[in-house]
Amino acid sequence: MATTESFHDLLRVPAGAVDLGDIDPHGKPGFDDDKAAGEAALAELGPELAELQEQLFAERTTDSKRRILLVLQGMDTSGKGGVLRHAVGLADPQGVRITSFKAPTEEELEHDFLWRIRNAVPSPGYIGVFDRSHYEDVLIGRVRELVKPAEIEKRYDAINAFEQKLADDGVTLVKCMLHISADEQKERLLARLDDPTKYWKFNPGDIDERAQWPAYQQAYETAIERTNTETAPWHVVPADRRWYRNLAVARLLVEALQGLDLAWPAADFDIEEQKARLEDEAPLT
Amino acid sequence: MATTESFHDLLRVPAGAVDLGDIDPHGKPGFDDDKAAGEAALAELGPELAELQEQLFAERTTDSKRRILLVLQGMDTSGKGGVLRHAVGLADPQGVRITSFKAPTEEELEHDFLWRIRNAVPSPGYIGVFDRSHYEDVLIGRVRELVKPAEIEKRYDAINAFEQKLADDGVTLVKCMLHISADEQKERLLARLDDPTKYWKFNPGDIDERAQWPAYQQAYETAIERTNTETAPWHVVPADRRWYRNLAVARLLVEALQGLDLAWPAADFDIEEQKARLEDEAPLT
Repeated sequence: MATTESFHDLLRVPAGAVDLGDIDPHGKPGFDDDKAAGEAALAELGPELAELQEQLFAERTTDSKRRILLVLQGMDTSGKGGVLRHAVGLADPQGVRITSFKAPTEEELEHDFLWRIRNAVPSPGYIGVFDRSHYEDVLIGRVRELVKPAEIEKRYDAINAFEQKLADDGVTLVKCMLHISADEQKERLLARLDDPTKYWKFNPGDIDERAQWPAYQQAYETAIERTNTETAPWHVVPADRRWYRNLAVARLLVEALQGLDLAWPAADFDIEEQKARLEDEAPLT
Repeated sequence: MATTESFHDLLRVPAGAVDLGDIDPHGKPGFDDDKAAGEAALAELGPELAELQEQLFAERTTDSKRRILLVLQGMDTSGKGGVLRHAVGLADPQGVRITSFKAPTEEELEHDFLWRIRNAVPSPGYIGVFDRSHYEDVLIGRVRELVKPAEIEKRYDAINAFEQKLADDGVTLVKCMLHISADEQKERLLARLDDPTKYWKFNPGDIDERAQWPAYQQAYETAIERTNTETAPWHVVPADRRWYRNLAVARLLVEALQGLDLAWPAADFDIEEQKARLEDEAPLT
């Protein structure tokens, strides 16, 4: 592909205060080519992602606890579904576990906000994907004032402690905010209203949320700043161009897998002995 | 593709006694062409499966409770993983929920055998896939004499009642036994022992299970006969040819979706009113 730079380095949010206004949603950092080339580059990543993923999946037969957790956040229409289809879809579904977090159920509300998250952490060997996540609890929770500011403050700390514990348990976190512009969101919402095959994706409440755009951007900035740790850093993925968004997340996944330095597990049995057992077996009757 | 016949009709097990010896594992019912044509036919199914699946997924925004549950059973190496990758993998992972059932955990053993199954039933709008299932409890349970014959008998009835209840709740069941020959299994086990990238798939215990081949075939025959209901019929999918197996399961999925007579949900809001809200909105500052 047109770049060998690390998307992890390029898209990682530097420590300190975050200003999303400084990051161009229409940008394509690390990829100096057009849509057709970007889609080809994404397709080319498929075999590499598939092999790395299978090596991770193979570790289930060892005592390794390593796994990946991709956290996808972003405003409505930012393309979480598209990333699931086109980037995560490159992987073998056998080794992928996707969880979509909606408004909490009554049962979930009876527990602390991380309870349902803990229950969805992928098992060793898997790539887990969160379509929305515990970050909703410091985003919509803050914008809609569902919880008091002091509680939001505590949640940032709780999230950092939780993610540190995940990392200690073998989880590599890949946290992505899909960053679109307000203009692009308007176009996408209007497109949904112009296409009967997309009406189902539209909800009048989306426009109410949109009216809070600046408050959401601010909530994202604060949440990212407060939870942008060495252990679990944030990436902001420019998402006005769908093809770049998909390519960037696929690259982040591949790089996370590469970082594990995976290898095929050795046989923990005597190969020749097992072959002989098969070759010399009694008739199966 | 080379056939327009219904794979559902072709592969469905007739009511009554089942003799797996009558079904050629190397067969390719309904497809009178070669591997290359079969792989092309599978790829061609992709767009149709994707659209039907998205229509099912769109129903989540309605009060529909419809969903699909694909149950995959088969001897070791019969290709459940390959079906997940190549057939289920044609669908958008966003709308798919795969559950792999292993030997029950201690917690699971404290409950009735259907408890963990109930917890994994897909939500409305989803295609759920069981990689092994409640059928293990009447297969290995019977062959290994983990439970008494009278209890196995009760389980067939419990399964039928459970599956009827699922159907009443909007679940379309697609039950597939991937049918391989003992010779083909031997080849595949030997191939795993010849390839360092496949050692992880091999377990010496697989050969112990293989030694019980006739008992397993008999357990399958009885289980299929006893649970081959109108509501949740069994399909036996010849699986010695990987490409045919993948194609057949993909066709069964597509046919199940077609049978739902899906359509895009209508808008439950005033389209022009919502467009106007967006076009006339106040600046987002």
